[in-house]
Amino acid sequence: MAFVKDFKWKKGMDVKTFVEELGSVGFQSIELKNASEVFEKMKRDKAKIYLSFTSNMVTSGLRGFFAQVIKLGMADVIVTTAGAVEEDIMKAFGEKFEIRNFHADDVKLHQEGENRVGNLIIRTESYMKFEDWMNEILEKLYKKEPRWPVSNFLREIGLELKDENSILYQAAKHKVPIFCPGITDGAIGFHLFIFQQKHKDFVLDVVKDFANIVFVSNYDERKGIIALGGSISKHHALLSGLLNGGFNYAVYMTTAHQSSGSMSGATTLEAKSWGKVKDDSDIATVIGDVSITFPLAMITSLENLITEGIIKEEREVK
Amino acid sequence: MAFVKDFKWKKGMDVKTFVEELGSVGFQSIELKNASEVFEKMKRDKAKIYLSFTSNMVTSGLRGFFAQVIKLGMADVIVTTAGAVEEDIMKAFGEKFEIRNFHADDVKLHQEGENRVGNLIIRTESYMKFEDWMNEILEKLYKKEPRWPVSNFLREIGLELKDENSILYQAAKHKVPIFCPGITDGAIGFHLFIFQQKHKDFVLDVVKDFANIVFVSNYDERKGIIALGGSISKHHALLSGLLNGGFNYAVYMTTAHQSSGSMSGATTLEAKSWGKVKDDSDIATVIGDVSITFPLAMITSLENLITEGIIKEEREVK
Amino acid sequence: MAFVKDFKWKKGMDVKTFVEELGSVGFQSIELKNASEVFEKMKRDKAKIYLSFTSNMVTSGLRGFFAQVIKLGMADVIVTTAGAVEEDIMKAFGEKFEIRNFHADDVKLHQEGENRVGNLIIRTESYMKFEDWMNEILEKLYKKEPRWPVSNFLREIGLELKDENSILYQAAKHKVPIFCPGITDGAIGFHLFIFQQKHKDFVLDVVKDFANIVFVSNYDERKGIIALGGSISKHHALLSGLLNGGFNYAVYMTTAHQSSGSMSGATTLEAKSWGKVKDDSDIATVIGDVSITFPLAMITSLENLITEGIIKEEREVK
Amino acid sequence: MAFVKDFKWKKGMDVKTFVEELGSVGFQSIELKNASEVFEKMKRDKAKIYLSFTSNMVTSGLRGFFAQVIKLGMADVIVTTAGAVEEDIMKAFGEKFEIRNFHADDVKLHQEGENRVGNLIIRTESYMKFEDWMNEILEKLYKKEPRWPVSNFLREIGLELKDENSILYQAAKHKVPIFCPGITDGAIGFHLFIFQQKHKDFVLDVVKDFANIVFVSNYDERKGIIALGGSISKHHALLSGLLNGGFNYAVYMTTAHQSSGSMSGATTLEAKSWGKVKDDSDIATVIGDVSITFPLAMITSLENLITEGIIKEEREVK
Repeated sequence: MAFVKDFKWKKGMDVKTFVEELGSVGFQSIELKNASEVFEKMKRDKAKIYLSFTSNMVTSGLRGFFAQVIKLGMADVIVTTAGAVEEDIMKAFGEKFEIRNFHADDVKLHQEGENRVGNLIIRTESYMKFEDWMNEILEKLYKKEPRWPVSNFLREIGLELKDENSILYQAAKHKVPIFCPGITDGAIGFHLFIFQQKHKDFVLDVVKDFANIVFVSNYDERKGIIALGGSISKHHALLSGLLNGGFNYAVYMTTAHQSSGSMSGATTLEAKSWGKVKDDSDIATVIGDVSITFPLAMITSLENLITEGIIKEEREVK
Repeated sequence: MAFVKDFKWKKGMDVKTFVEELGSVGFQSIELKNASEVFEKMKRDKAKIYLSFTSNMVTSGLRGFFAQVIKLGMADVIVTTAGAVEEDIMKAFGEKFEIRNFHADDVKLHQEGENRVGNLIIRTESYMKFEDWMNEILEKLYKKEPRWPVSNFLREIGLELKDENSILYQAAKHKVPIFCPGITDGAIGFHLFIFQQKHKDFVLDVVKDFANIVFVSNYDERKGIIALGGSISKHHALLSGLLNGGFNYAVYMTTAHQSSGSMSGATTLEAKSWGKVKDDSDIATVIGDVSITFPLAMITSLENLITEGIIKEEREVK
Repeated sequence: MAFVKDFKWKKGMDVKTFVEELGSVGFQSIELKNASEVFEKMKRDKAKIYLSFTSNMVTSGLRGFFAQVIKLGMADVIVTTAGAVEEDIMKAFGEKFEIRNFHADDVKLHQEGENRVGNLIIRTESYMKFEDWMNEILEKLYKKEPRWPVSNFLREIGLELKDENSILYQAAKHKVPIFCPGITDGAIGFHLFIFQQKHKDFVLDVVKDFANIVFVSNYDERKGIIALGGSISKHHALLSGLLNGGFNYAVYMTTAHQSSGSMSGATTLEAKSWGKVKDDSDIATVIGDVSITFPLAMITSLENLITEGIIKEEREVK
Repeated sequence: MAFVKDFKWKKGMDVKTFVEELGSVGFQSIELKNASEVFEKMKRDKAKIYLSFTSNMVTSGLRGFFAQVIKLGMADVIVTTAGAVEEDIMKAFGEKFEIRNFHADDVKLHQEGENRVGNLIIRTESYMKFEDWMNEILEKLYKKEPRWPVSNFLREIGLELKDENSILYQAAKHKVPIFCPGITDGAIGFHLFIFQQKHKDFVLDVVKDFANIVFVSNYDERKGIIALGGSISKHHALLSGLLNGGFNYAVYMTTAHQSSGSMSGATTLEAKSWGKVKDDSDIATVIGDVSITFPLAMITSLENLITEGIIKEEREVK
C-alpha cells in the first residue's frame, strides 16, 4: 500500500527528486510519476520505443528535446504530422518562432504576416524560405528516384540538415525512421503538388510506407509507445503496434478526455480492447499540457537510466 | 443590444424553437445559436460548404445525418479520416455497432473481439468482412487504373454502395468529393499494402489529391467551413481554403480548448491570423460534444432554409 | 443489446423525439438520453428531488427554467450559491443582463461598470439596486427575529418577490426549501455585514441550517439528485443525502472531468464509494455545458411525464 | 521580442532551471514561467498574498507544501473549504490517505469503508476519529465563548495541532487567518449541528467573518492572489479583494476553461471587468493540474527569493 505524503521543498531540488516525490502527492502528479516509471521499464526491457507527437509540439521548444531524446536512444520509431516536419526544417534553417500570447489581435497578426499557434507565432516569411528549400531538395531527390515511400523521403531530408537540435537530422543519423502518414497535409503538400505538375511520374508512396511501419517491428519484439497529444500520429503508431501483437508498454500524455470518443482522448484502457496495447501491459495516462508533463517525466527517466548505465549522455552513432 | 431571457419550456417544443431560444440563454447555448445562423448564411450566400469530421462521429449515428446533410445540399466538399471511410462502408454492408459504456472491462472486450470507441463497440468481425469486400473492390478498380487520387478512389467506392444512409454513397451520388489525406491510417492501409504487394504499380496518389482539393474551389468563390472535432481533417480543409484566399464563413465544434496549442482546440480567431478564415468572416466556435451540438444547430438551419425555399426536403440529383 | 442507429432529421422534429433518438447516436448523446430517463424514474418513483446549481446558471436564462421546473414539481430541495440568490433577486426587480462575447475588452468593461461572466454582462448598477432592496428586507426580517437559519431567510425573501420566473418566488410558493451554505460569499455577504454592524445580535445561522437540510428527508424516503456544475452546492446536496443513506437516483451534468480530483469533476461512480449515491442507484453523468444539456434532458422528461399524467402543466400550490 | 528556444536537458537539472527554460518552450509552459514571475513580484513588492485552494488539494500531499509556503511567508491570508479544514486536522492526528487509482471498483470501496477522491482514498475510520476530536475541541471552545467568527474558530483549532506539516498549525503560528465561508459544508457541519442541539446559543458567525476578511487588508495595501482551482474559496478571496480596490497581482491555476461561464474557469482577464484584479495588474493563468503546476512555479520563486534574501529558509515566528 502506498500513502499520500506531505510534499516539502528542499533548496536546490532537482527535477528527478521533484517528480519522484510527486508520486506520493495525488491526481495527475501520481500519473506523471507512473509515466516516468513506464519509460524506464520500456528501456530496461530493451523494448522498441515508438514516439508520436503533433506539429504544435515542434512549433514549441520541445523540438530540441525530441531531438535529444532520439540522440539518447529513447525513441526508435517516430510518427508525426506534416506540420511537424515542416517546422523542424524551418528551424534547422535558422527560422525563429516568436512568443506572444493567447489573446493576440488575430486580424492584426494576419496583416503582419504572423500566424498564431496558441501563444506562439510562425512568420509567413518562414514558409517562403521553406518553399525555396523544398524545391531544391525535391529536384535532387527526384533525380535519384521518382517514387518515394514517405519515411525514406524524410530520411534523405534529415541527412541534408546539419542541426543537432533537428528531429529529422538526429533521426536520420541514428537510423530512426520517421513516419508521416498525412504527409500532404501542410505547406509541403502544396510544394509536392507543384513539383508533381512538372514531373508526372513523381509519387510519394504512402501505401509502401504502411509496409515499412509494419515491418519496423514484429510480434516477438518487445514494444513501447509514448503518444503525445492525439491525431493521426497517435493512431498510426498504435495501429502499427496492433498489427504486431500490441504494445507491452504505453504512455499517453494529452489534454483530451475520453468523453467524446475521440482519438485524442482515447485511453490506454480503451487501447486494450483493440489489442493496441497488450492485456497485461504497463500503462499510464497523464492529462495535462505536454509542454510541461513530457519533459518532467522523461528527464526523471533519463537521470535514472544514466545512473544505471542503460543510456549514455553521448550515444555513439550506430 | 441583446439581453438574457428567462428560458421557458412550452409543451411540444420543437428543436428549431428550442435552439433559437437558447440564443438568449448564455454561454455555449448562445454560441450554438450563432453556429446555426452561420450555417444559414453560408447557404443563403451560395457559399461552397466544406464539412470535416473525424472517424468517431461515423462510429456514432451521426453517420446517417452526415449522409442526409450531403443529400440536402448542405455540404459540397468532405474532408475526413481513414476510420470514417471504413466504418461508413462497414455500416453500408449491414454491420451493427453496439452501445455499451465508458467503463467497460477492456480486457474482457478484447477477448470477445469487441473494440471500444468511448461507449460504442465495433466488432473485430466487422473488420474481417470489410477486408473481404475491400479486396474485391481493389481488384475491380485496379483493372481500370493502377494509380488513383484518393478522392476518385472514394468516389468509385461510394458508387458501389447502395445505402441511402451512407456518406460515401450520397457524396458520390451528389458529386461531393471526399478527401482523405491520411487514407492509409486504418485497416484500409493494411489492405492497400497487401494489395500493393501483388501489384507493385498500384499507387494511391495523395499528392495528386492535394491538387484536387485546391482546385475544388477558387479565390472568387464564397466558401464556408464546418469543422467538427480536430485532427488532420480539420487542418486539411482549412489549408485548402487558405490556398484559395480563406473562408468567408467558419463554424468549429469541438471539445478541445486552445490552451495547449493543438489543432483540435485552435479557434476561429486563431484561424484569422493564418488567413484560413477571412478577416471579416462570420465565425462561431461551439465547445461541446458534436453528437449533441451539431444536429441541434444543423436541424435549426435546415428548418429555416426549407421554409425559405433555399433547400428542398428531397434534393434532386445533379 | 442496443445498437447505434443512423440519426435522421424529420421536418418539425420536436425536442423529445430528438433526445430520444440521440440515445442511439453515441458518446454524450447517449448519456444525455440516460439522464432524461433517470429524471423520469425519480419522479415516477416519487423520490424527493434535490436540484443543485451554480450562480452562472442563474446569470443565464436557465433561471426561468429552474423556476418552471420547481413549479412543475420536478425539484423538492434546492441547493445553490450566494451569487445565484442575488441574481435571481436582481432579475425579479427587472434588472436585465446583457449578452456580449467571451473576448470582450475587460478593462473597457470595467470602466463602463460592466462585469463579465463568460459571454454575459451584469451591470454594477444592478448590484446597487440590489443593495437598496436588501437593506429594506433586512430591516423587515430583523424586526421579526434576530437569528435566521439561511433557508428560512431565503423563503421570506422569496415570498416578497412577485415574479413567476423567480427561483426564490416559486420555491417559497411551493414550499421548496433553498439551502445556501455559503450565503456570505457574494455582495449579499457585504450587506449582511453592514447590517450586523448596526445590529450586533443579528445572526444568519448556518449551523441550524445544516440540521434543516438533514431533516428535509430521511433514510426511508426515496431520493434523487440533479447536480448541475460543481462547487459547494453539489457537495452540500450530496453530503445531506449521504447522511440520509444515499441517493437512489443521481444525474451529474458538468464540464469538468475526474482527472484532477475536484468536486466539479467527481463522478457518480466515485459518489458510490462514499455512499453519497447507493450501490444500486440509477446514475448518469453528462459532460457538457449545462445551458444546452439540462433543458434538453429535462424537457424530454417533462413531455413524457405529462403524457403519463405524473406531472401537470399547471401544478396547484400545496 | 522573446523567441522559442529548443529545450535541452542537462544532467542534474534543478527545478528552477527547468521552469525558467520552460519559459521559452510554448503553450502552458510559458504561462507556468509567467506565474512564477508574478509570485516573485508579489513578494518583492511586499504585497499581501491571498492563497485559495480546494479540499482535494489537501487530500493530496500539497497539504505539506501549503504549510511550508505559509511558514516561508508566501501566504498572508488563506481562503479554503470545509473539507480542506477537516482533512488537515485528520492528517495532523496521524491519519493516512491511501493512493489507489481512478478506475477503482467504487461499490467494493464503499463496502470496505474507503471513500475515493480521484486516485486517493480517505477511510471512513478517519472521519470517526475526526468526530471524537471535534467534540472535545468544541466543548473547550464553547466554554470560552458561545459565538465564534469562523476564522477565530479555525485559529484556535490550529493552535491545538502540533504538526509542522499542518496548514492550520502553521497559519495559527504565523498569524495567517484562514477564512472558510462554507464551513458547514462537510462532516464538520454535522458535528457543529449535533453540538448546537445541546447548546442552543452556540453560533458560528459567518457574517462577522465577512467583516474580518474585508478588514484583513485595505485600499492602499498592495495585494496579490494565488487562486488554485475554483469554488467558493476562489470567489471569496476575489470578492474580498474587490471590496478593497482589487488585486495588484493575480495567478489562477485551474483545469477549467471559461467556456461555460463557471467560477472555476473564470480568467484573470474576466476578473478585470469586475475590478477583482486591477486594470494594470500582473496576471497569469495556468491551465493544468495544480498538483504539478503549483509546486513547479512556487519552488522556482522560492529559490529566487531566497537567493535575493527576500525570504529565509527558516522564517522566525512573528
